[in-house]
Amino acid sequence: MIPERLSALRGQMKKKNIAVYIIPTADFHMSEYVGEYFKAREYMTGFTGSAGTAVITMTEAGLWTDGRYFLQAEEQLAGTGITLYRMGEEGVPTVDEYIEDTLKEGECLGFDGRVLDGKWGKKLRALVQKKHGSLQTEEDLVGLIWMDRPKMSGEPVWILDTAYSGQSTADKLAEVRQKMQEKETSLHLLTSLCDIAYLLNLRGNDICYVPVALSYLVLTKQEGILFLQEEAADENVRTCLLDNGITIKPYDSFYGYLEDIQDQTILLDTSVANDRICSVLAEKNRIVDEPSPVSRMKAVKNETELANIRKAHVKDAVAMCRFMYRLKKNVGKVPMTELSVSEYLTGLRADMDGFLEPSFETISGYAEHGAIVHYAATAETDVPLKPEGFLLVDSGGHYLEGTTDITRTFALGKLTREMKELYTRVCRANLNLMNAKFLYGCTGKNLDILAREPLWEAGLEYRHGTGHGVGYILNVHEGTNAFRWHGEAGAVLEEGMVTTDEPGVYLEGKFGIRLENELLCRKGEKNEYGQFMYFENLTYVPFDLDAILPEQMTETEKRRLDAYHEKVYETVAPYLEGEELAWLRAATEKVSEEGAENE
Amino acid sequence: MIPERLSALRGQMKKKNIAVYIIPTADFHMSEYVGEYFKAREYMTGFTGSAGTAVITMTEAGLWTDGRYFLQAEEQLAGTGITLYRMGEEGVPTVDEYIEDTLKEGECLGFDGRVLDGKWGKKLRALVQKKHGSLQTEEDLVGLIWMDRPKMSGEPVWILDTAYSGQSTADKLAEVRQKMQEKETSLHLLTSLCDIAYLLNLRGNDICYVPVALSYLVLTKQEGILFLQEEAADENVRTCLLDNGITIKPYDSFYGYLEDIQDQTILLDTSVANDRICSVLAEKNRIVDEPSPVSRMKAVKNETELANIRKAHVKDAVAMCRFMYRLKKNVGKVPMTELSVSEYLTGLRADMDGFLEPSFETISGYAEHGAIVHYAATAETDVPLKPEGFLLVDSGGHYLEGTTDITRTFALGKLTREMKELYTRVCRANLNLMNAKFLYGCTGKNLDILAREPLWEAGLEYRHGTGHGVGYILNVHEGTNAFRWHGEAGAVLEEGMVTTDEPGVYLEGKFGIRLENELLCRKGEKNEYGQFMYFENLTYVPFDLDAILPEQMTETEKRRLDAYHEKVYETVAPYLEGEELAWLRAATEKVSEEGAENE
Repeated sequence: MIPERLSALRGQMKKKNIAVYIIPTADFHMSEYVGEYFKAREYMTGFTGSAGTAVITMTEAGLWTDGRYFLQAEEQLAGTGITLYRMGEEGVPTVDEYIEDTLKEGECLGFDGRVLDGKWGKKLRALVQKKHGSLQTEEDLVGLIWMDRPKMSGEPVWILDTAYSGQSTADKLAEVRQKMQEKETSLHLLTSLCDIAYLLNLRGNDICYVPVALSYLVLTKQEGILFLQEEAADENVRTCLLDNGITIKPYDSFYGYLEDIQDQTILLDTSVANDRICSVLAEKNRIVDEPSPVSRMKAVKNETELANIRKAHVKDAVAMCRFMYRLKKNVGKVPMTELSVSEYLTGLRADMDGFLEPSFETISGYAEHGAIVHYAATAETDVPLKPEGFLLVDSGGHYLEGTTDITRTFALGKLTREMKELYTRVCRANLNLMNAKFLYGCTGKNLDILAREPLWEAGLEYRHGTGHGVGYILNVHEGTNAFRWHGEAGAVLEEGMVTTDEPGVYLEGKFGIRLENELLCRKGEKNEYGQFMYFENLTYVPFDLDAILPEQMTETEKRRLDAYHEKVYETVAPYLEGEELAWLRAATEKVSEEGAENE
Repeated sequence: MIPERLSALRGQMKKKNIAVYIIPTADFHMSEYVGEYFKAREYMTGFTGSAGTAVITMTEAGLWTDGRYFLQAEEQLAGTGITLYRMGEEGVPTVDEYIEDTLKEGECLGFDGRVLDGKWGKKLRALVQKKHGSLQTEEDLVGLIWMDRPKMSGEPVWILDTAYSGQSTADKLAEVRQKMQEKETSLHLLTSLCDIAYLLNLRGNDICYVPVALSYLVLTKQEGILFLQEEAADENVRTCLLDNGITIKPYDSFYGYLEDIQDQTILLDTSVANDRICSVLAEKNRIVDEPSPVSRMKAVKNETELANIRKAHVKDAVAMCRFMYRLKKNVGKVPMTELSVSEYLTGLRADMDGFLEPSFETISGYAEHGAIVHYAATAETDVPLKPEGFLLVDSGGHYLEGTTDITRTFALGKLTREMKELYTRVCRANLNLMNAKFLYGCTGKNLDILAREPLWEAGLEYRHGTGHGVGYILNVHEGTNAFRWHGEAGAVLEEGMVTTDEPGVYLEGKFGIRLENELLCRKGEKNEYGQFMYFENLTYVPFDLDAILPEQMTETEKRRLDAYHEKVYETVAPYLEGEELAWLRAATEKVSEEGAENE
């Protein structure tokens, strides 16, 4: 199937005289997850991961993806003739290096300018110029050969009440316009769907797991135009927007409108806006290329959002604790598989008031599947769970009160010594970061090693960031704040930012362990040395004591584990009873000497 | 005295119509320490710290310095009428902000273009342009009023044998020229005295504590010109240099020569070269503004250097252990002061073969003086040592085998509980970083928190970096690699880099604690996750067990302390005997349970 598609694409490339064609993973808004209509890279390669870039020439086809997806991509590309390029590994060329090597003098490079970001587009334009080549970015070649392409989504949008958003649209717009003025810009173009949804207190349903609507927003000092699919907004939404000076125009009239913008000073983030937007606007306007003020606004949660988020996490914890209890109790007695427990967990979440939908596709990986960092079980890969080894479950929900993201790895029965040793390391890693105290000014890059050191000291590593920001009923992955050790530092950690803490260990072909909590950054003591910061933990689900070797933890670490479990018990116990409650008490029992003495 | 000098300077400023005059702390080479001739900022303000910038207007005078020097500057500026600007503190303007606020439309800004770096010069030029003002950078105004200015130093230079340098000048030159070619440059101008000394395997004596010679080096593909004071090079040196294609020209002919350079592509680091050089060369040439390849070459020590460095550290450890023994034994019985013990320590170092000179001015701070981070005792401040409290001694030596830098804080007798608690924290901080294991690709910014966390968790902070690179018979502070949590990340930690590990705690008016070792970065295990790195400790002097509370350390930390002390004993014991040896055994006794069981 894939070879046929490649061959059809090459037919189109030949017709248009394109030597190298790039197919990134993106919609017109550089969204991390994309709607079905936009899955061109998946259509062309068969690789279903959320990140990856395909590059096709007349004789070669390559797919670039990162460490999270190496195992998955290897499996899915097998037999397609597509070469897997493992990003970041020694000796592996980057996409740009590959194109530089491959594109010959005078040849034509092609891509759809709407699905590739402006910063990259600029680099590619420079490369083509250096090669005295040409560029074709107007045409979506995959669209020409994709006969049964799904329709572009245009689901209804709805308004998020101030009781949940904590700040009116009018206030948010005033804040953005204040920043526009500070930056001496006359127009601000927003293309990130989450930014638009946050700013207008609107939510939609055009991307699975991310409740946002396909849209562009043009803001001037006085007015705003929201480009939205006709069928998406009802009268109520239109009125609400109009009250805030925002009029709606058809989504597909956006690129025509763009051509008419001139002589403006435009605030535009070209790393987020697509290449076509950037190149069209740059012709007749001055671009102030900076992140939208909205990206910081949405990263720093307000008091209403925080109060809600805490409630959402209690609900999520109750569902997860029930899941953990029933999973561990019934495995080996009741038939269950990766997929069935994943569905069961979604059901437990759905029982909670205010639940909207899962915040991403649940990862439910048993045994060696746990080692595939972004494994998603399918009917073909699904396996029954046995009363032994580890099940890794990474899941989350959108509630009206906010979004959750949690990973727990469960001991389903007998574990090897190695499994317990590594689980204990990952648990220490999670607790180390959770208990950090630091001076204001630190980024996640300063703190990352607190989680990584318990793995590094054993010669282990997890090939993903330690944590990411979490959106509020938006993308569960929010970019501003992060914990990672290389690459960009990310934002200075501010009070109100929520970041995940998710160290792991993955032994290919054996098992995977990841333990993920969410941490809210808060102000602590302020003294002569500055403002100290700490984390408030938001996630209340036990670490699995069946997999922990207390003797491999320091007393400090054991006390931290006990303190965490004590808080879990306090928080969740009021919602459980009978056997479940008894289980929770046992699952949160103390491991420190101090704790043991008190028993 | 200071007010008279300020008034004389203002007389000159008035004559030349200069509204704002900047006096940085630098020689023509942006050296960290400067010769007596260059101490213009000290002459004008009375502040003797190694870092600071004075800005003088007709009505105001300000001195900017960093956290290390707040206390010292406060004392030294008292009564001068000069305002102290504490850099980095909330609400304190930077030098640039102050100038921007102070320089009025159309006014003239002045500084000596030879003592201010090119990057800063460029910023100042832009600022003056914005104000439609003018610039005077040709004149050294302080020189005009400084009647008894010391002569510029021109001490003999000497050749560092390959047995110590480990790489011939010819090889080093070839390596640099290779890099010049890679960067497509026809000329490389070196202005950093340490870079020149390293590259030519030359040492001098023009800066106290830094054995280098005042010089500039112009390198072309084939030749080199070393601008050096006439009296500095004897026949032997001249011949050696000539053998490597390097001819000598008079130091003071350099700026004339500069005017003649044209149509070259010049590799020049404008953050290190002075403003005059940068502005003259930019007129008729193309500048490739990058660090000299020498900065990385000298940071990554070769095998010969490393073998030597280890020897130098053993010598240094023997001197320091003798010092520690005699200090602790005799305090309260034999009269001693901060200065007298400092001289005594220098004498013990001088007893060692191959000792050249101290590598910086010893900091010997008793009780509250220990809280002044860069305290240097003078006849006026010197105090007698009593058999109680802490003495902080930060010292080091240049040996033919390399340069050392070590800080120990000694318990001279009775300590308070607080003193012991804080000493224990600093000791844990030092050991945490020393025992780091990390993946290749980390910079000191990733690792810094390992040392800082034991302080941060108690709401404490030291207002200096955790560590700096160490030169090889060059400046004890070398810039490429560093441990720090904010500001620039510094270089990726490479095998062969030597960095200090020096956390501390300073309680103003009470005491200071700092514990400093040097760490050599080495390759460890390489596996599927990448190349792991670790540190080899180079410094072998006990931490003071009289100040340590083992019960406030985890078992892991106690075992790390024991392992360190075991290595100290093994390394130093062969050089001690009798009472000294017995003392060393006691000073390195085990504190862990494991250790206690073995006793």
